[in-house]
Amino acid sequence: MSRKRIYLDYASTTPLDPRALKAMLPYFREKFGNPSSIHSEGAAAKKALDAARKTVARILQARPDEIIFTSGGTEANNLAIFGAVKVLEEKAVPISKMRFITTVIEHSSVLECFRELERRGAKVDYVPVKDNGIVNPKTIGALLRPETVLVSVGYANNEIGTIQPIREISRIIRAHNFKFRRSDSVSEVGIPTEASGLFKLSNFQTCFHSDGSQAPLYLDCNPTRLGVDLLTFDGHKMYGPKGVGVLYAKRGTLLAAVLVGGGQERGLRSTTENLPGIIGFARAFEIAVEMREKESARLQKLQDYFYSSVLDLPEHTEYARAGRAENIRIKKRFIINGSLTNRLPNNINISLHGINTEMLVLKLDAAGIACSTKSSCLRDESGSYVVRALGGGESRALSTLRFTFGRETTKKHIDALLKRLTRIVSESV
Amino acid sequence: MSRKRIYLDYASTTPLDPRALKAMLPYFREKFGNPSSIHSEGAAAKKALDAARKTVARILQARPDEIIFTSGGTEANNLAIFGAVKVLEEKAVPISKMRFITTVIEHSSVLECFRELERRGAKVDYVPVKDNGIVNPKTIGALLRPETVLVSVGYANNEIGTIQPIREISRIIRAHNFKFRRSDSVSEVGIPTEASGLFKLSNFQTCFHSDGSQAPLYLDCNPTRLGVDLLTFDGHKMYGPKGVGVLYAKRGTLLAAVLVGGGQERGLRSTTENLPGIIGFARAFEIAVEMREKESARLQKLQDYFYSSVLDLPEHTEYARAGRAENIRIKKRFIINGSLTNRLPNNINISLHGINTEMLVLKLDAAGIACSTKSSCLRDESGSYVVRALGGGESRALSTLRFTFGRETTKKHIDALLKRLTRIVSESV
Repeated sequence: MSRKRIYLDYASTTPLDPRALKAMLPYFREKFGNPSSIHSEGAAAKKALDAARKTVARILQARPDEIIFTSGGTEANNLAIFGAVKVLEEKAVPISKMRFITTVIEHSSVLECFRELERRGAKVDYVPVKDNGIVNPKTIGALLRPETVLVSVGYANNEIGTIQPIREISRIIRAHNFKFRRSDSVSEVGIPTEASGLFKLSNFQTCFHSDGSQAPLYLDCNPTRLGVDLLTFDGHKMYGPKGVGVLYAKRGTLLAAVLVGGGQERGLRSTTENLPGIIGFARAFEIAVEMREKESARLQKLQDYFYSSVLDLPEHTEYARAGRAENIRIKKRFIINGSLTNRLPNNINISLHGINTEMLVLKLDAAGIACSTKSSCLRDESGSYVVRALGGGESRALSTLRFTFGRETTKKHIDALLKRLTRIVSESV
Repeated sequence: MSRKRIYLDYASTTPLDPRALKAMLPYFREKFGNPSSIHSEGAAAKKALDAARKTVARILQARPDEIIFTSGGTEANNLAIFGAVKVLEEKAVPISKMRFITTVIEHSSVLECFRELERRGAKVDYVPVKDNGIVNPKTIGALLRPETVLVSVGYANNEIGTIQPIREISRIIRAHNFKFRRSDSVSEVGIPTEASGLFKLSNFQTCFHSDGSQAPLYLDCNPTRLGVDLLTFDGHKMYGPKGVGVLYAKRGTLLAAVLVGGGQERGLRSTTENLPGIIGFARAFEIAVEMREKESARLQKLQDYFYSSVLDLPEHTEYARAGRAENIRIKKRFIINGSLTNRLPNNINISLHGINTEMLVLKLDAAGIACSTKSSCLRDESGSYVVRALGGGESRALSTLRFTFGRETTKKHIDALLKRLTRIVSESV
């Protein structure tokens, strides 16, 4: 990236931390062994793999055997959802009897899994969000059934940065599990199997998965405190390498492998381990947690500065100034998408009614600023389904603009952004 | 790896080529963009991704849209097999009506897929191999049925290095496809679907997949010449990075994604692309092909040298000296496993009747030599199922020893190996 460029698309991907790269380098050539080999080169690789796993486990206050390394967030999400289905299918539970709950604003790597399960006959409830982009835990509670296999709610949204009430949702799911699993009627309640009557619900719990890909840089990710059974992480979203992710899977969680073969990762994810990637992931995760507090506070200030400045833009003087209230509406054409209080400190998402923001992104790019309209995993879709879910009409969903800050973002960058954005928006009006 | 170590386990994994590493390095930090982003950083990443895809396509004399990047050989094999099943399931073809053919000596990442399909009701024929480790194409031909979805035969075996007659098998499958698909009875012949009668066989061909993970360093991998529809490659088996592989999928091959989400890789493999890994893969593949001829000849000489020397070892003077004949048997305790003529030039696999070769590997390791007994993906299994498939009794399968040579292997290394092997075997007798 040229020195003059201002990169404001950290939610799409981050550069690898130089310390993580340094940690990785020896494992490409000098320490290149296969962790499954029994000779010294293999043993050294195994030792490094175990150490990286322990590092991740320590950060999450989890056990090493609860850490499954994958090829990224997408595979971790696929493993969480399809793996939970597969293990029940292996016990002859037909998919047509399974139920799932997720939200309408999940990342495509979650939503596409559920769409596939629907095509295969499962019942999936897509929970809406309030106009601030936050889900109501009670809505999930009302949808829970004995045959609900899994609930998947992303921790922090990749487009609008809203943080979901994971702990509250967890409490509701746990109460549900307690009610159905510990009751005397447990032998009566269950998912019918094709072969021999009921698959006893005492054998399984409604599982709670969260896609935490956007969270580790800014939020506490302790799965026990969050109350999740399955939690997804993605290396390249937190200054780690691309091509590596983690699925945290709480001990006892029923899960079957999606990729099968040599039986690595306790049989849950076969393939020769990507050791340099795993080492880089663990180091990047360590650094992210070390920097979390300070960096969150720093970016929060930049976020506030952006909001207060954008609201004072001369072209947009008429606005409902709501301070840190939800859904600030600027009379003329600005809407800030998503809650301002339950939000990642690095995320800005606005809609600019009537402006072709796809074109705006290209103009900003030409002016040296990299940003996006929505998730980069949705290039071909029309508008943002996340912002569409907030209500406010089609124009809002079609005119989104996302800036996501990162470690190199400074106040100077925000000033430059505001200046160029104002100019380009004025020209577009 | 210490300077004094002699690494003879290149079939398990290879060190990254320094030129491939050099090609990768800019993509970790300077050019870290997400190929799906529309700004300059994204466009640059997309350009690099496209170039890497074109490089791989050029090497294979294939089209860029036939190259699917994956997280490795395991995922490529899983995608080929499960993807072929999934696409038919989506057309309501029940798995119980599908048939598959593979061999008994495939890598675990192929066999485990088929075992899963069997558990789900499919019919899988596991074709035996002759005592030289080569499959008889006619055996496959005799098993082909109209409802045979896929045939999977590994190009070169990871344990015994035997090369399968892929072209001959392809001809038989093509004749089968021609016979069944082009006949007038095509409307009568088909796989029954649950819903509406037959899924017409004119809509699909028996697909031919080959795991080529062990092949690119030594063999022509042109899929058109080989006559395969699906062909697997694995970066870390050819001095490329771990965590990256390729599935070649011939245009028109019916395939559905195993990992779903953002729709990358033409919807066949979702996840943010591991760009540094992909760049490294493409560069390593280029280098492998450049070096193929010379390196094959060089290692062939070392292989011959090993054979001729081991047969002259003073402790083992009584042997049936058969030159380059198949299955040389040394009267006392040596058997060379697998064909000597249709074999990778870097692979040595012997059985040492009555010797605990797991212990021998550890002793050789202590003496500075890294080798293996079998596939590193089979750590917990008893003996080698590949060698068991050659016949010759259980003792042979339990006493395997594999040496696989690579770019750093020299005649001096073989001399050192022979010396230490002789000493340790003598002590073990």
